[in-house]
Amino acid sequence: MGKNYWITDKPIQVNDCIAKVIRPKAGAIDTFIGTVREFTKGKRTLYLEYQAYAEMAEKKLAQIGDEINEKWQDTETAIVHRIGRLEISDIAVVIAVSTPHRNDAFEASRYAIERIKEIVPIWKKEHWEDGTKWIGDQKEKTSYQEKLPTEEEMSDD
Amino acid sequence: MGKNYWITDKPIQVNDCIAKVIRPKAGAIDTFIGTVREFTKGKRTLYLEYQAYAEMAEKKLAQIGDEINEKWQDTETAIVHRIGRLEISDIAVVIAVSTPHRNDAFEASRYAIERIKEIVPIWKKEHWEDGTKWIGDQKEKTSYQEKLPTEEEMSDD
Repeated sequence: MGKNYWITDKPIQVNDCIAKVIRPKAGAIDTFIGTVREFTKGKRTLYLEYQAYAEMAEKKLAQIGDEINEKWQDTETAIVHRIGRLEISDIAVVIAVSTPHRNDAFEASRYAIERIKEIVPIWKKEHWEDGTKWIGDQKEKTSYQEKLPTEEEMSDD
Repeated sequence: MGKNYWITDKPIQVNDCIAKVIRPKAGAIDTFIGTVREFTKGKRTLYLEYQAYAEMAEKKLAQIGDEINEKWQDTETAIVHRIGRLEISDIAVVIAVSTPHRNDAFEASRYAIERIKEIVPIWKKEHWEDGTKWIGDQKEKTSYQEKLPTEEEMSDD
């Protein structure tokens, strides 16, 4: 089976993530898929580059799975995030959460994507027609024009 | 490409549904998957049987897609529902909704599953260890012990 939380530099197969959470006790699986969007506020993206501290990122993804288990009953979660260069419409992230009943699946999946953007050390570099920029924390409140934070700086939070 | 709303008696491939909604303008796809759960309130299900007025059901699914388009901006929806005999963990329904931003995808997908249970003429027959029952409307507020409503009766609502 392998692990439920992983970073990859290969194209993501959504089914790999879903297969990890299908089980007899579940009646609902919510799967959130983030894809590379061409236009943001009228500005055209040519492609994106994602970079991560992979080992730390996988630990943080697993932490999110643990948090979900504490907040909702009887969940199974799997999350995969891709890094490297991604073209328009490529899948950047897949979250799958299975639960006995559907309300929990929707809520937990939504929680997961917000938490990924808050705590997982993954950054994206936007490549536009007229330049590039590292988008800082995934909530996009900070931008790193020059360089990414070090792994040590990330460990502090 | 084929249609975005369909009833099938074959195993559902989740990717077939997702492929219909991936597009450059979308940054988020929420995919809801309903699977056959083994236990409901302590009672063990052996398998399910789904039956539908397929042509009417497909029209109603398309109507739900139209409703989503009216309620949220710039959506693309695909829905497939399986009929016939389904074993534990089999996929009964997949809904995929793509939108530019993720909040809309979550909300629209959730809306779709509630509406399916309200308006689409699909019924399930529970096969337990000690008997069977047709679960009536999909909200499970009515049960049909004897027979399903006729297609004409369904058309009235």
